[in-house]
Amino acid sequence: MILHHLTRDDIKSLNQRYKAQLINSLSGFKSVNLIGTQDTADKSNLAIISSVVHLGASPALVGFVMRPDNGERHTLDNIINSKYYTINQVSIDIYQKAHQCSARYPRQESEFLHSGLSAHYISGVSAPFVKESRLKYAVQLKEIVPIALNNTQFIIGEIIHIMCDEKVIQRDGYIDIEALNTVTVSGLDSYHASTRLSRLSYAKPNILVEKLSVSGSTIETLEGEE
Amino acid sequence: MILHHLTRDDIKSLNQRYKAQLINSLSGFKSVNLIGTQDTADKSNLAIISSVVHLGASPALVGFVMRPDNGERHTLDNIINSKYYTINQVSIDIYQKAHQCSARYPRQESEFLHSGLSAHYISGVSAPFVKESRLKYAVQLKEIVPIALNNTQFIIGEIIHIMCDEKVIQRDGYIDIEALNTVTVSGLDSYHASTRLSRLSYAKPNILVEKLSVSGSTIETLEGEE
Repeated sequence: MILHHLTRDDIKSLNQRYKAQLINSLSGFKSVNLIGTQDTADKSNLAIISSVVHLGASPALVGFVMRPDNGERHTLDNIINSKYYTINQVSIDIYQKAHQCSARYPRQESEFLHSGLSAHYISGVSAPFVKESRLKYAVQLKEIVPIALNNTQFIIGEIIHIMCDEKVIQRDGYIDIEALNTVTVSGLDSYHASTRLSRLSYAKPNILVEKLSVSGSTIETLEGEE
Repeated sequence: MILHHLTRDDIKSLNQRYKAQLINSLSGFKSVNLIGTQDTADKSNLAIISSVVHLGASPALVGFVMRPDNGERHTLDNIINSKYYTINQVSIDIYQKAHQCSARYPRQESEFLHSGLSAHYISGVSAPFVKESRLKYAVQLKEIVPIALNNTQFIIGEIIHIMCDEKVIQRDGYIDIEALNTVTVSGLDSYHASTRLSRLSYAKPNILVEKLSVSGSTIETLEGEE
């Protein structure tokens, strides 16, 4: 294997588009989610985001990064005004429609209309869910952390409603998102399906980790059961 | 499809372990990276992290979330002292060794030794790389953002050296991390390989997105070339 080595000066001198592709590839596989919001006139908005990150289970907190985006920030404005948003996992059957949501539509035009995705609502949440998504949740804004280094914002919220296809929730709470055909993205625009290698047991010093079944049982136990 | 609906009260009343599995599954597929650091006595440390997130390309910034972890925070202490760390993508051939690094080893014992992974160094970076990783980079600490809501920290750094198997860097800068066998994780412990669905063209209003080859060419152009 020949390792290509880029220094800080090399990175700085790269062409802007090339650099965006390259640096976006470094973090590894990313989540693909649609963030649903609405403005003060109840106009819906949908944004595709690859930076949603788990922050903690108690309280159930989730974060994502908003980029400055040339002064247009429909999603962030909506979140600031309504305090609510939805996060909707994207699956194989809708990934092209989800990607279409990254086009720069004018503020008054809903990405739901342009992408062909459908909105639905629940009581108490002033933000639209994506009907086609099989795992989605409503989030209440808790904190917006400005990142001065590059003028981005880290948006943190608490998960207040979870809706998920019940068949894929395992006995130990693990949600089999592969069974939902949830996709992952690498770089800016490469979408991928997944194939499970294994679940692994909780790691402890001086004990080798074991493979687990999707339900969280040790493989030995599982074989014994069958 | 029957949607299982959990409210905020339902979520709060879940058993702690079940809740950790469930909430960790919500964000979608996550990156799997090993963070390499060393202490003031040059003792190496390796931590497996699923929260690395792209923050921007110019400057090239990357972030990740550190959890409080019962007062033990070898990685964070090392980063604060040395100001440098490495981020190493995890591939199929080393994912079990990488998972082993999540065991709670005492401060004086290196995860390199216990996992069977090998360290290497480059001049000017006081942190170890993982030799077996085919895509890795050195990062200089820029900012630690405390998240008071749940006592986590968001660690932000600038990418100052990139080392990558040169065969997988495409003409437009996209790095084919699937060709590197880079893995992704769902929940706390489920590891997955990937299968590319497609790259998609840059989305614009009123133009349907097109499938692209892995090199970023439109499929039509690619067929014409062959």
